[in-house]
Amino acid sequence: MSSPHIPTEQWAQVVEQTGKPVVYKKIPVQKPGPDEVLVNIKYSGVCHTDLHAVNGDWPLATKLPLVGGHEGAGVVVARGELVNDIEIGDYAGVKWLNGSCLSCSFCQTSDEPLCAKALLSGYTVDGTFQEYCIAKAAHVARIPKECNLEAIAPVLCAGITVYKGLKESGARPGQTVAIVGAGGGLGSLACQYAKAMGLTIIAIDGGDEKREMTAKLGASSYVDFMTSKNLVGDVKAATADGLGPHAVILVAVNEKPFQQAAEYVRPRGTVIAIGLPAGAYLRAPVFESVIKMITIKGSYVGNRADSAEAIEFFRRGLINAPYKSIGMSQLQKVYDLMHEGKIAGRYVVDTSK
Amino acid sequence: MSSPHIPTEQWAQVVEQTGKPVVYKKIPVQKPGPDEVLVNIKYSGVCHTDLHAVNGDWPLATKLPLVGGHEGAGVVVARGELVNDIEIGDYAGVKWLNGSCLSCSFCQTSDEPLCAKALLSGYTVDGTFQEYCIAKAAHVARIPKECNLEAIAPVLCAGITVYKGLKESGARPGQTVAIVGAGGGLGSLACQYAKAMGLTIIAIDGGDEKREMTAKLGASSYVDFMTSKNLVGDVKAATADGLGPHAVILVAVNEKPFQQAAEYVRPRGTVIAIGLPAGAYLRAPVFESVIKMITIKGSYVGNRADSAEAIEFFRRGLINAPYKSIGMSQLQKVYDLMHEGKIAGRYVVDTSK
Amino acid sequence: MSSPHIPTEQWAQVVEQTGKPVVYKKIPVQKPGPDEVLVNIKYSGVCHTDLHAVNGDWPLATKLPLVGGHEGAGVVVARGELVNDIEIGDYAGVKWLNGSCLSCSFCQTSDEPLCAKALLSGYTVDGTFQEYCIAKAAHVARIPKECNLEAIAPVLCAGITVYKGLKESGARPGQTVAIVGAGGGLGSLACQYAKAMGLTIIAIDGGDEKREMTAKLGASSYVDFMTSKNLVGDVKAATADGLGPHAVILVAVNEKPFQQAAEYVRPRGTVIAIGLPAGAYLRAPVFESVIKMITIKGSYVGNRADSAEAIEFFRRGLINAPYKSIGMSQLQKVYDLMHEGKIAGRYVVDTSK
Amino acid sequence: MSSPHIPTEQWAQVVEQTGKPVVYKKIPVQKPGPDEVLVNIKYSGVCHTDLHAVNGDWPLATKLPLVGGHEGAGVVVARGELVNDIEIGDYAGVKWLNGSCLSCSFCQTSDEPLCAKALLSGYTVDGTFQEYCIAKAAHVARIPKECNLEAIAPVLCAGITVYKGLKESGARPGQTVAIVGAGGGLGSLACQYAKAMGLTIIAIDGGDEKREMTAKLGASSYVDFMTSKNLVGDVKAATADGLGPHAVILVAVNEKPFQQAAEYVRPRGTVIAIGLPAGAYLRAPVFESVIKMITIKGSYVGNRADSAEAIEFFRRGLINAPYKSIGMSQLQKVYDLMHEGKIAGRYVVDTSK
Repeated sequence: MSSPHIPTEQWAQVVEQTGKPVVYKKIPVQKPGPDEVLVNIKYSGVCHTDLHAVNGDWPLATKLPLVGGHEGAGVVVARGELVNDIEIGDYAGVKWLNGSCLSCSFCQTSDEPLCAKALLSGYTVDGTFQEYCIAKAAHVARIPKECNLEAIAPVLCAGITVYKGLKESGARPGQTVAIVGAGGGLGSLACQYAKAMGLTIIAIDGGDEKREMTAKLGASSYVDFMTSKNLVGDVKAATADGLGPHAVILVAVNEKPFQQAAEYVRPRGTVIAIGLPAGAYLRAPVFESVIKMITIKGSYVGNRADSAEAIEFFRRGLINAPYKSIGMSQLQKVYDLMHEGKIAGRYVVDTSK
Repeated sequence: MSSPHIPTEQWAQVVEQTGKPVVYKKIPVQKPGPDEVLVNIKYSGVCHTDLHAVNGDWPLATKLPLVGGHEGAGVVVARGELVNDIEIGDYAGVKWLNGSCLSCSFCQTSDEPLCAKALLSGYTVDGTFQEYCIAKAAHVARIPKECNLEAIAPVLCAGITVYKGLKESGARPGQTVAIVGAGGGLGSLACQYAKAMGLTIIAIDGGDEKREMTAKLGASSYVDFMTSKNLVGDVKAATADGLGPHAVILVAVNEKPFQQAAEYVRPRGTVIAIGLPAGAYLRAPVFESVIKMITIKGSYVGNRADSAEAIEFFRRGLINAPYKSIGMSQLQKVYDLMHEGKIAGRYVVDTSK
Repeated sequence: MSSPHIPTEQWAQVVEQTGKPVVYKKIPVQKPGPDEVLVNIKYSGVCHTDLHAVNGDWPLATKLPLVGGHEGAGVVVARGELVNDIEIGDYAGVKWLNGSCLSCSFCQTSDEPLCAKALLSGYTVDGTFQEYCIAKAAHVARIPKECNLEAIAPVLCAGITVYKGLKESGARPGQTVAIVGAGGGLGSLACQYAKAMGLTIIAIDGGDEKREMTAKLGASSYVDFMTSKNLVGDVKAATADGLGPHAVILVAVNEKPFQQAAEYVRPRGTVIAIGLPAGAYLRAPVFESVIKMITIKGSYVGNRADSAEAIEFFRRGLINAPYKSIGMSQLQKVYDLMHEGKIAGRYVVDTSK
Repeated sequence: MSSPHIPTEQWAQVVEQTGKPVVYKKIPVQKPGPDEVLVNIKYSGVCHTDLHAVNGDWPLATKLPLVGGHEGAGVVVARGELVNDIEIGDYAGVKWLNGSCLSCSFCQTSDEPLCAKALLSGYTVDGTFQEYCIAKAAHVARIPKECNLEAIAPVLCAGITVYKGLKESGARPGQTVAIVGAGGGLGSLACQYAKAMGLTIIAIDGGDEKREMTAKLGASSYVDFMTSKNLVGDVKAATADGLGPHAVILVAVNEKPFQQAAEYVRPRGTVIAIGLPAGAYLRAPVFESVIKMITIKGSYVGNRADSAEAIEFFRRGLINAPYKSIGMSQLQKVYDLMHEGKIAGRYVVDTSK
């Protein structure tokens, strides 16, 4: 079953060789298998992971040639014969998790991101920097019609990931969460989700610009790691009883906070690692960790239910991530800026330009 | 309210100066405050922590002069005027947690061990190496009359602590737990509790003697760290699907396992740190911890409810920790053996000898 | 330890005989026991339970003569010799749970409301319709100085109770909760707590006045039981996917909703009974309850930690319960209105008038 | 992909008309769809539900003509082209849940039994009273090769269902569970699972034969509803502290226990309804349910993860359900005995006879 207007060729950004610029070119449009859908991608967010795929500098090898991208929002235009719960014309999102076996012990317990056979969009299978992208029907995100496809794109990876981390932290409405890297791409979304979840937020980042930005996003206090003389003390002091936050969300891009969070988290509190600084280690003294009964936990991307929930918060108007738009043909420019560390917020590419 | 036969003087082992041998001497018997009980200690287990108190080599200062000991089993002989839920003649256990405020946010949520005002038996208040010991009534363990006071003594700290760690791990009946240091004092109790809780056990320790011992205690497989050429691989291979144990219980006395456990625990699994090797650090790569969604958690001693539950397992005959008995007058001998690392299992002192 | 200005006599409203009007008279001021505090009550909310105590129409007998009241907000003026964690001059709240043993299996697991020895303010011990009230120090609510004592009074029972019920429901931020009786005293507080906890609210009640009121309090939809021709269908239709709310909070005063909620709650959803219509029964078909895996749960008052959390939401300005003030001398008038069912919202008495 | 020896015809027991005897006849062997497997059923348990399907006396209509049966253990002989995680020759179990959409909000959260599109073996699709049965590959139970297919058959519905109920109860190792109907088919399996899960068991049933049987299966006490003069009191008295069991598992076949369990369950305890007496209602007083904070919960069949766990307990040798064998051609005889209430334990049919 398919829409009548699917072309046989399309524009795409292709990684032909790792370490080289992406190539903007025409490639064939694929046909979905029996349990797949074909999505006409309208917009796609650009993530640091995409740059890693281009550079080939992660331990995990990519498909080659590769179409990158994993924050794609678009419209279903064709579906395989086993697919009956999504209609042609429905809005859909293609996420990092393009598919999984749905059968292993992890898939059985809603931990699809841990599936050993998981397909990763823009990494082990072609992703969303093309006009028409394949994904497993059971895994594409259902996007309600009232949502803006451009604005929701960054939610499909960054939003889901920070929402998952906040859930994993176990922090309950009314409790306090420190977000380390609160002014960055993941961090700004984390602030908005945390606020929508009834949490009190201590934003940790550097500089006055981020102070103002995180305050607008809902943080009730700010600790500036660039000027604080006693970061551990300042974070604790930002809680009403001085015992520290109930949870810490690590979306920072360097290693230090991953080793420092255990010092200011409240006894019985939880430190959630989400960010992936290259070569970084979690580290905490055994004695204090035991005596304070601290939990340190890694949180990867969300599963399908987390994704649906994260999208529902967006639909209700509670999530407004700042982003910039650009034509997909300009993708290399975005990578160049990213490489230079010059991006504030998130870029979204328009596949029609 | 009190028993008529309480002497005014008693034998005790007193730390008069840290770093020096304990002194066996007569000291006065104390009177319980309004919310306290006086327990005629019959037997007390000897724990490594006691040796640290004698040596004064922990960062936390002890009371001085000090009566050590925190695994005391005995009989209630007097109680304060506010105490009405324990009777003269009842069996009671004096634990590491001698008392807590019962009012702070941690006490309110059953985390008494995290109370900032907690009184620690044999450390910040006098403990169980004396014939008559004071403890807060709300904190003494209730021991059913059918229990053997000598055999239950080591349960009052070691047993409760490993039971708590197993609970904190979240491992459910039928799941697999690796116990690192399974043949030691804490480890052997951990094996028995794990078995009673319906868990499958991978014992990790060194040497054939411990292989046999842990098999008797209920372990279904054994990995010998002294002979294994690939410990991580061997531990994973000991699980039916090769994915590794659902939880790891660290009761080891050196640092290495605290940094290795994250490598063999199952994705979504939990590593529980209980043992306290001096100066040791928890350490795990951020990338793998995130991708596998691993939890690393410190677990301290049990609260009052954990204690009651741990005792109930003992009462039902499921916990039989091997121990040796000796007169309390010989306590220094036990410390000497401990210092030389020559103790297998646990020593229990008889306060009447 | 005490403030210098405590009188020996005070004004109080006394139930001398059940079924008769309360008597406004002078009675002696009590002295706190070693683990108690004396609170100078400034304001006290009036609850339906108080009327039951006056009428003596509950199966559980009250103390006689009795000073009723259990939503008292005031200032600590004296404390017993064992009390060291609350200061003279601190704000404190006297709740339904005046004290508990802090030692039984329920108190050990933070379920103080289930303690068999619980003391109940204004029921089994004298309550807050007097100027100076005794309560166990471990149980009085700590009220931050920035809180308005008049406005917080109704939070001390009604607020804590509905917050507890919302917690017990397990509903997570982003999920939907139906509140049955949403426009009443408990219901209006439930709406505000639910909103602060990030929940989507379906208000169920009767009439347009309550429609407007609940909309202001944060409900996103309203089902009018007086005009709905298919209440079950209408409640389900108020959820995005038509499957019904994740949880139902029953604060209604008649039996029917207690038997109907299982019909519209979502499969795997939870029905929380809080209200106590006289002689009412929970009732649900076994077949549908099993096939839909529904949970029905009773939720009583909150424990101390719940109370502190409920107060913290108030402190942050998120809870604004409508109430009316009146002098304590006029209490019988409030009972009369209550008896006639003429009270909208909550009355608060001022003990100084 | 398929085994070379699959016949085109096979023996089956067919319901041609509800209310009439089943017809033993030859019917065609089906071919699996792309996401399905064909299982050569060796043995199938017979369940009361099968009799309901034959009689057509449930509110839910069956397929007609229908092959009943949903406890089938056998060998995979063919698989569809999308199936790659189960091999020809593998042992597999066909359960009540033949398939589900794997995509809806319930499937996404591991609640496949609640899927609105669930296929039910022997009810809405053909079941296991035939030599070759179709099932969705993602849903067939993986049975390890060391398992006896005859003995495991009753585990595939009865075993999984009671194991699920015990999990849903939240009872932890060391706690006490009352099993109502402990001597029946579900009850005897519940006793064995409860024991393997470290629970203390109060068996409730009638007569001395069941007393002995449940004692052998692991119950530590027995309450005979036929002779007890105070069942509520006797069940409470069977717990160490007299407060009642932490959980109650209702596998009884009449309504009374479903309304009585709330009276003897411990405060904060959980009553789990599993059995489905025709037309029965759950019922409990609101007042006591609230004051005691009791939970009443329906538990349906297990999901795929529950099923794998229940099978793993069997593989470890902990589950030995008593059963009788008979040729599949004699199925009507089993139904006749069942109708007369003359079956103790479970019947298993051998499809080859």
